This record gives sequence, structure tokens and C-alpha cells, in this order.
Amino acid sequence: MKEEIEELWREVRDLSLGNSGNVDRLESPPSAVEFLRDFITPNKPCVISNAISHWPALSSWPHHSYLSQTLSAATVSLHLTPTGAADALAPLHSSLCFASAHVQHVPFPEALSLISSSEPHKLVAYAQQQNDCFRSEYSSLAADCDPHLGWATEAIGSEPEAVNLWIGNQHSQTSFHKDHYENLYAVVTGEKHFLLLPPTDVHRLYIRHYPAATYTYSSDTGEFDLELEKPTRYVPWCSVDPYPSVETVDDEMAKFPLYFNGPRPFECTVKAGEVLYLPSMWFHHVRQSADAGGLAIAVNYWYDMQFDIKYAYFHFLQSIQYRSTPSPMLKDKLAEEIDSGPDDNES
Amino acid sequence: MKEEIEELWREVRDLSLGNSGNVDRLESPPSAVEFLRDFITPNKPCVISNAISHWPALSSWPHHSYLSQTLSAATVSLHLTPTGAADALAPLHSSLCFASAHVQHVPFPEALSLISSSEPHKLVAYAQQQNDCFRSEYSSLAADCDPHLGWATEAIGSEPEAVNLWIGNQHSQTSFHKDHYENLYAVVTGEKHFLLLPPTDVHRLYIRHYPAATYTYSSDTGEFDLELEKPTRYVPWCSVDPYPSVETVDDEMAKFPLYFNGPRPFECTVKAGEVLYLPSMWFHHVRQSADAGGLAIAVNYWYDMQFDIKYAYFHFLQSIQYRSTPSPMLKDKLAEEIDSGPDDNES
Repeated sequence: MKEEIEELWREVRDLSLGNSGNVDRLESPPSAVEFLRDFITPNKPCVISNAISHWPALSSWPHHSYLSQTLSAATVSLHLTPTGAADALAPLHSSLCFASAHVQHVPFPEALSLISSSEPHKLVAYAQQQNDCFRSEYSSLAADCDPHLGWATEAIGSEPEAVNLWIGNQHSQTSFHKDHYENLYAVVTGEKHFLLLPPTDVHRLYIRHYPAATYTYSSDTGEFDLELEKPTRYVPWCSVDPYPSVETVDDEMAKFPLYFNGPRPFECTVKAGEVLYLPSMWFHHVRQSADAGGLAIAVNYWYDMQFDIKYAYFHFLQSIQYRSTPSPMLKDKLAEEIDSGPDDNES
Repeated sequence: MKEEIEELWREVRDLSLGNSGNVDRLESPPSAVEFLRDFITPNKPCVISNAISHWPALSSWPHHSYLSQTLSAATVSLHLTPTGAADALAPLHSSLCFASAHVQHVPFPEALSLISSSEPHKLVAYAQQQNDCFRSEYSSLAADCDPHLGWATEAIGSEPEAVNLWIGNQHSQTSFHKDHYENLYAVVTGEKHFLLLPPTDVHRLYIRHYPAATYTYSSDTGEFDLELEKPTRYVPWCSVDPYPSVETVDDEMAKFPLYFNGPRPFECTVKAGEVLYLPSMWFHHVRQSADAGGLAIAVNYWYDMQFDIKYAYFHFLQSIQYRSTPSPMLKDKLAEEIDSGPDDNES
């Protein structure tokens, strides 16, 4: 099956996505028809300029004082980790687990100061509660952005299912995963750096089941503790870290050759004022650069995706094992066995 | 691979197409956005009423006299076969070939009389030249129809690549095949009966390579001759006849169990005044009923399809052999062989 799957990676690039590794760029928002035809239908990402230029957020949110004042009465969910990697694989008991952040509910001004004073290997704070938080915890910022993106809502035929706010700094990153949504990701300040792989490339991410664990942070000691959930719960997650350290790079490349030796992922930086269309089922890894004030802030709109023939094909692909095709001789043996039924006599 | 492929057939129906075997019906043409969102994106057929009610063709074309007069000066391509089955499998030298019609260029009034006097097992005539003929051979009928369907052209972003006219009778049928176009099929008089299978079901049609042959008709003897092309040319074609005769039905069902025992094909009758959206890459088989004057007439619009992720997935699926998954014991042998390399010693 190896050859057929690798041909699929090649063909989707040759026919539709291109081989440059670049993401299409639009100088203005598309019409609903263009967005459907040129991006949603072919399941193809793009970066759109001048779609949110009118948002008051672009000028006001880079100022800590504006945010702290507007959200002075808000309590928000803050994700704390020792490294900036939440919802990511972490070593535990000489194996790997799927580690979730310690989530603390804190007054917004305190959250903001924790985010901007984050220090890796000590405490990294990231406001990234993905539960429609922009319309709940952060509702006092509502007037600074649009409640939805008109052309996308018209194309998709319904308002966003969730709108999330992300306030972080250069230390936070999001490990490779996919979402069952059409995603429009608007950067307000700072920059976001995306690595993208189409759903056809699912085998290249080595999705495996990892036991779920959660960080607990003690503000007294300033220490994190990482503990497995009880009873054990397994989470299927991508095994690939695209940016391994100098010490681990050889080992990682040997473990995940389909990722490191296959076609380059699509790469794009989304700057303040730009919007990324991240198509449903695409795998994405996100890093960020902070603005002068130490922040990276984004708003993302999750719109319902269609569970259609593309999704069914994806599921089918995922159900197939990547492996070398049997040699012709073995194929004959196989055909023989299928014809005669399996042999129960193992002598 | 058997289980995975059959799960794909099920899933595309459960998620998107439905299990009733019915095709969606719209009471009026969709907007461009609706057409893209609800049908082109999910690659899903529909029948649309009241999309061509304003065409003068609906009232004038059922009259032979109108057609003969308007096309009195036209020479048209007429497809002649002994059975009504052109571009279909036919027996030859105790095997099967892919038989194309005898194409004769005749004045339109003569063509019309041959079509309506067609007799199966003797001579069946069908005007079905698929080379944009409506805009060439039949251009004097242009004012009777729209040159394109506005909502479809807006959705797809370009005018039709080809517009074809089909004038036949109840004896002509079109065997299972697929086209690399988005197809809008407007019935003007008579009825068309479609069997439809989604691209996910490709293995169920047993596409095999058949030698191409062409009928030659002698008007002197009234006899057909069927001869293989020289040099031999092989055409990949669907092996399944969905309506086998009483004599051959058991044999056909035994030869093509994936078709006859799998999910029922989608079925629809498109009446005069209705339009079928036949999505790109869907397999279709077409029969027809004639109107009171003995004719079935349709105009179809072929719009460019997108060669995108769906097409790449289809190609991938088609590249995979349908067969039982190896038994666990054999899987071990397989893994062993892959690890150690194929064994060249066959003793």
C-alpha cells in the first residue's frame, strides 16, 4: 500500500495544492461563491489580507492597559504549563503521555500579567480556552471585532459554531492535530506560524494512542506535577514534533521518516490583520511571535464542516495500513489462500 | 481491503447521500452559493424543477415538423446500432468488445425519421454526438434554450465546456460510465431514467479493458458488421449491465456480486422540464421513455470539474485491489517477508 499512498500525497499536490509549500494569498476577502469554489470545495487553505482592517481590535488590543481595563471584571481560563506545550506529548515514567495544561480561573488583569511574564522551563501561561470563549468570558471585547465573517457565513450557510480568543506569547505552541471544523483564524497582534499538512498525509503523522495526563501547578512551590488520568484514558494524537531539539533530531527523524522524508509541509506566517482559512481535517502545528508588548492575540471562527464524500474518503484512507505492497510471489500465495479459505492447520 | 472498501460505501451514504436510493429534489433552481455548498462541494446529485420552464423548446420540440423545418438545412451525426446500445460491451468472437456506433452524417429530416422508425434487432438510430454539437450542428435551435444555466455558470465560474443535444427513442440506452465533468442534464421531451453510483463504489462496476470495435452499417443489405479496431486498442469500461435478460441474470449476478449484492444504486427519472445535476465522477446508466411522438430529447451542459482532493482520493481508491484482508496468520507471514525481503527460492 506504500506506493499507492505516496502517489496520493503527490497527486493532491500536483493537481490542486501545488508543490511550492506556499499557501495561496488573497489581497481582499473572497465572495461567498469564490470562497466555496476555490477553497472550501477543493479543501485548500489560503491567507486573506484586508478582511479585518476595520476591526477596532487591531489598534486597541496591542495595549495591555486597554485590555486590562475593558476586561477588569472578567474571570478567564488560563492554561499553565512548564514549557508552553499544552495538549501535546510529554515524557512521563520513561514513556510518553498526552499532557493537558493546568487550567486556572483568574481575573483577567492577573492572567495578562502571567502571560507576559511567562518563562519557559518555569511557567508559561496561555489564554486558549476553546469553548466559544470570545462570546462568553471575553464578551466585553465583542465590539472590537466582527461576530462572524460575512462571506464565510454566507458560503457555509450558518453562523460560527464557536468563536475563540487566543492570548499568548512566543513560548506557547500547539502540537500537530486536526479539527472537525472549517476554521478562519484572524491574527490581531503578533504573528502565527503554521505548518499545514493535508488530510491525505495522515500516515505521515503517526497517530498513536497515548495515555491522558494533566499538569497540576502549585503556586506555593512554583512547581508542576504531571499525573496520569485515572481511570486511564487513551487519546489518539500525532506523534511528530516538527521541530526536534539538536539532541533528539536524529532519533526523531529515524522514528518518523514519512514526515521528515516526505513532501515538505505547507508553511505560512499569518501577520496581524490577516486571516488564515484552515480547511477542515487539515493537520496543523502552530507557533507564534509576540508583538512589542510581548503578546500574540488571535480570534478564530469555527464553522461547521460538511461530513461528505471527502470525510468518508479520509476515514477510508486512515483505515488502511501504510506498508510495502506484498511481492508478486506472496500475492499469489495470498490469492490462493483467499480462494481456498484460510488454513486452520498450523503444523 | 474488502472490509475497508465496503465501510466506505456505507459511510458516504450514512453521512451524506442517504440510504433511500432517492435523489434530492429541488422545486426551483438553487442560488450559486446553494448549488456549490449543498451539491458540488459534497459531490451529491439532485433533480431541479422549474429551472427551464421558460424555454421555448419545451413546447416546440415535441413537434417533428418544427424540428424538421428549423433544421431543414442541417447535416447531423447519427449513431446507428442494431440494439440501441452504443459505447457498450457487445459479444464478438465468443468474447466481449467495446462497441461504438456506426456514425453517419445525414440531413436532419432524414435523421429524425430514422430515429422515430427505429426497430430494435434491426436498426436503432440515436443523435448523440457529444462534441458540443448543440452549438455547432444544431445551432439553429439555439434560441429555444438557454446557452448556459446562470446559477451553475456563476457557481462553477465559467461557461459550459460543451453543450450536447440528445435525440433518441425508448430503445437507446447508455451503459455505465463516468465523465470528468460537472454535468447538468435538462430533459426537453420524453423521460430519462438514471441509475447512479458514487465514485466511492468504483470496484462494484468491475472496470476492465476491452478491445475497441466499431459497427459498420450497410444500407444496401440493412445489416450491421462489428469489427475490431486495428491496431487493437483497449478501452477501460464498466462490465456491469444492470438490466440483464432473464436468460443471463443468474450468470451476471454471479460474475458481478459487488454490484448486485451491494447497496442499491441511486435511481431517478428526469421528466420533461426537469434538470439533473450529475456530479463529476459519478457512474451513470441511462435509459429513456419516448414522448407521444416517439422521441426523447435532452440538452446537457458539461462544465469543467475541479481536479482536487476528491479526484486524488478517487484515484487512490481505484488503485487499490478489492480483496479479502489477509488472515492474521498470513499477516504475520507478510510482515516477516517484508522484514526479511522477498524470498527468491521457490522450491
